[in-house]
Amino acid sequence: MLRVNDNFSLIPQSYLFSEIAKRVSDFQRANPEARIIRMGIGDVSRPLCPAAVEALHRAADHQADPATFHGYGPEQGYEFLRNAIARSDYHDRGIDITPDEIFISDGAKSDLGNIGDLFSTDCRVAVTDPVYPVYVDTNAMAGRAGRPDSASGSWDRIIYLPSTAENDFVPALPLQRPDIIYLCYPNNPTGTVLTRPQLAQWVEYALANSALILFDSAYESYITTPGIPHSIYEIEGARRCAIEFRSFSKTAGFTGMRLGYTVVPRELTGLTSDGTQVSIHQMWLRRQTTKFNGASYVVQRAAEALFTPEGKRQVAETIRYYMANASLLRQKLTEAGLKVYGGIDAPYLWVKTPDGYSSWEFFDILLSKYHIVVTPGAGFGPAGEGYVRLTAFSSAEATAAAASRLAEAKY
Amino acid sequence: MLRVNDNFSLIPQSYLFSEIAKRVSDFQRANPEARIIRMGIGDVSRPLCPAAVEALHRAADHQADPATFHGYGPEQGYEFLRNAIARSDYHDRGIDITPDEIFISDGAKSDLGNIGDLFSTDCRVAVTDPVYPVYVDTNAMAGRAGRPDSASGSWDRIIYLPSTAENDFVPALPLQRPDIIYLCYPNNPTGTVLTRPQLAQWVEYALANSALILFDSAYESYITTPGIPHSIYEIEGARRCAIEFRSFSKTAGFTGMRLGYTVVPRELTGLTSDGTQVSIHQMWLRRQTTKFNGASYVVQRAAEALFTPEGKRQVAETIRYYMANASLLRQKLTEAGLKVYGGIDAPYLWVKTPDGYSSWEFFDILLSKYHIVVTPGAGFGPAGEGYVRLTAFSSAEATAAAASRLAEAKY
Repeated sequence: MLRVNDNFSLIPQSYLFSEIAKRVSDFQRANPEARIIRMGIGDVSRPLCPAAVEALHRAADHQADPATFHGYGPEQGYEFLRNAIARSDYHDRGIDITPDEIFISDGAKSDLGNIGDLFSTDCRVAVTDPVYPVYVDTNAMAGRAGRPDSASGSWDRIIYLPSTAENDFVPALPLQRPDIIYLCYPNNPTGTVLTRPQLAQWVEYALANSALILFDSAYESYITTPGIPHSIYEIEGARRCAIEFRSFSKTAGFTGMRLGYTVVPRELTGLTSDGTQVSIHQMWLRRQTTKFNGASYVVQRAAEALFTPEGKRQVAETIRYYMANASLLRQKLTEAGLKVYGGIDAPYLWVKTPDGYSSWEFFDILLSKYHIVVTPGAGFGPAGEGYVRLTAFSSAEATAAAASRLAEAKY
Repeated sequence: MLRVNDNFSLIPQSYLFSEIAKRVSDFQRANPEARIIRMGIGDVSRPLCPAAVEALHRAADHQADPATFHGYGPEQGYEFLRNAIARSDYHDRGIDITPDEIFISDGAKSDLGNIGDLFSTDCRVAVTDPVYPVYVDTNAMAGRAGRPDSASGSWDRIIYLPSTAENDFVPALPLQRPDIIYLCYPNNPTGTVLTRPQLAQWVEYALANSALILFDSAYESYITTPGIPHSIYEIEGARRCAIEFRSFSKTAGFTGMRLGYTVVPRELTGLTSDGTQVSIHQMWLRRQTTKFNGASYVVQRAAEALFTPEGKRQVAETIRYYMANASLLRQKLTEAGLKVYGGIDAPYLWVKTPDGYSSWEFFDILLSKYHIVVTPGAGFGPAGEGYVRLTAFSSAEATAAAASRLAEAKY
């Protein structure tokens, strides 16, 4: 009989968002008059900016005419977009990344999952904790995570690096050497960042230990504090130890459009089991040309428009809108006596539960008393217990309503 | 140091299309006045149909307005599209497939590559030969192909099933039992089909041998002969042994839009190493929710429009256009004394090279004497030697010009 990949059976069903949905719908049924405000899910609420919509209309017209029709495009993405990214996101910021090191895809989640194809299943993986679950689950599927502990939900071959108020959300360097280190800054879910010296320490560690950093900077456009690195390639030496994942989802509301990109510098190498040094860039190119057929032409045209002066202005406006939400939430939650992290350089607020409540207990209080849905921190890993995540992605009206309910709250 | 997936190093660089491009550009440089006609690449030339373009414009407007904006969609695809597919492609043809068995993706190539995540690396794989190279290369990356033979280009753990004029392009059932069998009908590159009894034999074989058929029916809409199966699920028992891959690329010119779907019936099961029976449907759902974030909303809306009465009419018109090309090519090539296969139920013609020419020798003759670019059959596997592939996807004008050059040819 057909033998399957055993690793899938080890992965516990993820009940986080279905459990949230169930509790919310149970509550709504019992309290039909309650006006529930959802601050839990990381999806955006603002529409695409006009520049992107206009570009999308133009691209639709291209597809209607044989003279301008675009069929199969390059698997790596169109040059018009790779050039715009290389210029605006790297060159203009003094960072040395060339267009041929940029791979356009249908989104960072796909790339973060698919990148695992390149590495030996023996590799040891380190993640900060709490963590975006995709890093762990995709490695579990490939057999790199070992076995899960049913009580804690942690895996015995994954190296967890706690990131909590106790260490100011700056995880310590690993005690055991990992081959692959996932870093996400600005961080999901904690909303915290690393300073330049802090990130430099990770690059130094990776170079000294021949480890690879997978750097997820999906939220870089939310950074407001001067000097915080937007790209890991701002750090000397990162071209020799890091792959960077970026997304248009949160930058420009492309969650439903699907577009991201991955930067794989030419210097990156790994070893085969017989000791041959191979190019990670070449491997990713081979993976993408074999198992992917390029991102949608019309979506790439919409993204290109984000790099025009109007596009940049409109994107910045939307980000200011969300960050005003974040600022209001921070203020009101703090006034209510809660300890709040994040929300300054990221669209996420990471809130300590009061009085030793568990994250699910605090979730239930916020839902039942204040009709606000958050995400329990325990869903992001063991070190997420004792926190909840709020997002700044709701409308200003909903955020203001939630903020005033939270400000009046007694916990 | 970072250990990579060794299997990537085993895969020879594919020089097929780069070698074609090199020979064409060398010839064009030496003969600047030659008007070269390209009949080699499988990309379409007709624009999107008006119904799809209008839907794309409407969807672009949805994305401009907070009231109709669509962010993250379901990873499995929107119900509006899954319902339309289940109704038009299955229910209305008397086939039992439900919308929740349909998974929308960014294209069949991605799914055909990613489906391998579900299976043990020990599985034995069978392919018909000649073959779409993606089936072989993706299994080679996962370690299922064994080692390549540098002379023949074939892999020692892949079971090759020759499909040639000698067996009327109906490959014999394997002598060794495979776990996974790739079938593509209408076939790329041969343009041939399987009759219902021939396909039923494969389903019977798979059921008797607990094998899984991966059925690629990307070209089903080109079938003109009544009674030829459009879906493997027309065959009794296929729900228990087959996954079907479909694409909007050739049906509706979506090669640059990126959309396809994969049907995974609920009955399909596999075994873990400890003998537990698991659902392949559940595994694929888990894979897609973890490593994929849904196809673009605007592209899904464009695809939905293909299922309206105008959409269906317009799609059928485009297919008739290409099939008129196929028919003309068949006629002129046959008149020129060549033996031609395919082109009746598929947009591909598979042409026997005359006088024992190798496929590359015949490629060179067609290029240098008649300024026509084809694809050498050897690029599709050992049994492709002695053939070339022509596509019907060019414009009617280019096809007519090529056909009249070919008709006058002396080989």
